[in-house]
Amino acid sequence: MKFLDQYEEYRVYFETCLHKACAEMAFQPKILTESMCYSLLSGGKRVRPVLFFCTLDAFGVDYRDEKNFAIALECIHTYSLIHDDLPAMDNDDFRRGRPSNHKMFGEANAILAGDALLSFAFDLLLGECGRGNGFLRAAQSLSRAAGALGMVAGQSADLLYTGENGGEKELLWIYRHKTGCLIAAPLIMAACIAGRYRQEAEAFGMELGNLFQLTDDILDAVGEKEKLGKTTGKDAAEQKLTAVKVYSVSGARAKAQESALRCYAILDRMRDAQMDFLREFVDYVLERDR
Amino acid sequence: MKFLDQYEEYRVYFETCLHKACAEMAFQPKILTESMCYSLLSGGKRVRPVLFFCTLDAFGVDYRDEKNFAIALECIHTYSLIHDDLPAMDNDDFRRGRPSNHKMFGEANAILAGDALLSFAFDLLLGECGRGNGFLRAAQSLSRAAGALGMVAGQSADLLYTGENGGEKELLWIYRHKTGCLIAAPLIMAACIAGRYRQEAEAFGMELGNLFQLTDDILDAVGEKEKLGKTTGKDAAEQKLTAVKVYSVSGARAKAQESALRCYAILDRMRDAQMDFLREFVDYVLERDR
Repeated sequence: MKFLDQYEEYRVYFETCLHKACAEMAFQPKILTESMCYSLLSGGKRVRPVLFFCTLDAFGVDYRDEKNFAIALECIHTYSLIHDDLPAMDNDDFRRGRPSNHKMFGEANAILAGDALLSFAFDLLLGECGRGNGFLRAAQSLSRAAGALGMVAGQSADLLYTGENGGEKELLWIYRHKTGCLIAAPLIMAACIAGRYRQEAEAFGMELGNLFQLTDDILDAVGEKEKLGKTTGKDAAEQKLTAVKVYSVSGARAKAQESALRCYAILDRMRDAQMDFLREFVDYVLERDR
Repeated sequence: MKFLDQYEEYRVYFETCLHKACAEMAFQPKILTESMCYSLLSGGKRVRPVLFFCTLDAFGVDYRDEKNFAIALECIHTYSLIHDDLPAMDNDDFRRGRPSNHKMFGEANAILAGDALLSFAFDLLLGECGRGNGFLRAAQSLSRAAGALGMVAGQSADLLYTGENGGEKELLWIYRHKTGCLIAAPLIMAACIAGRYRQEAEAFGMELGNLFQLTDDILDAVGEKEKLGKTTGKDAAEQKLTAVKVYSVSGARAKAQESALRCYAILDRMRDAQMDFLREFVDYVLERDR
């Protein structure tokens, strides 16, 4: 099957599961459910669930049985976007072409929607822990990736460093934590469930996160994101430490090429798994800025 | 042992564990650890950890082995206070006589400190899940109590209803969710770990939460809280739906008396456990407004 068709198969399966979960969600007051589902169902490429499903597939595990982990992943990603968009953080009025959560529901409800999504994710994870050690370890990996050793640490450092007081070292630290941990999480979780290639999955995931963030910064700099309806609050955006500031656009493209080569090399170490899809995934991320 | 001495024993043990956990916390950047520990270590009566420890004790379980659950409880309580104090929520500049988290570290860091504390709590819970079904169920109970079926739902409803559009029904709903669930959680968790009296523990905890919130509203109305250094943003405070608005001060006191009687009655149903401390705990909560 061609890469994009396969991607679409994973994405559509996830989208179906997520819509079902949202349709069954009946948290009171209604505005809480509405604000949670508004952001959960705002589309996007569902990169993390697709990475989770395809890695399970590569390791010979039926991904259709693991939808709760995938929903938990997306809940955590979504909560981080809602809180990131708040006026006190990036102050983004739009997300994927629609008003951001706090623009639709007000700041207080947006804070609570994020809190509720994070709690809901852990509810889902805890529901899987009784199935065995691999599932418990998968849940722990996601928890670790989301918190103060992972994504939240990256967001905190992102507030701290600008183009003025930060350089390559700080940039890479922020990348690894803010983006890398939650891109690596689905790989690690799949490896925990399959019981194989734990280290390789983590190494690959972190490198893919690096590549992802590099191409994201390039896209931002060349203005593609504006077309996609993402507008970062100008003040915040101008101060941010980015790959383009550190390396220039052509330098960042060269770094992305190197990162892709490291991704392939790690995939080669997982010889008895079906890594074709992940190899094409690397190309897909690398080429999004073309 | 006298009630207050026993309370102090539980509280001091918890405080020691919490200080140790904070001393070992090394999340980067430093401001993340600092902002988390600033609020965690701001004192307070540690009601939820004490309730957890004393219920384990009553059920014959060594509470000293279960400190991680107690720390998780306090992390969740603390995160909820940090987010509740934010300008977009209650807009409180002070908490327990000290500047609130966002006044010390700024709004963005306060949002992240809350997010990090919630994630850290789940990290601790997941770390206990491998010990057996009772521990897994205890973790699930806390997760349920913290999220959109519990505390967050209460906070959301608290934003929705004022003295104008809400009455007794809405007040009791908010009480049950915003306060009750996280007061009941330590009781339920202890019952899960001990493997006994699950339903009674929940019924007692929810009623104690009701009593707690009633006396809290009375304290607020008669102004004791101001002396303790708690100042609610005036606008927010005046709009809130409270027991004193619904029942008047004397009416709320009568409701508190009735609630205490229901607490005693539930305790009587747990005949082969040592409920003396919890009985005195009810008196302690009932009498704080005197």
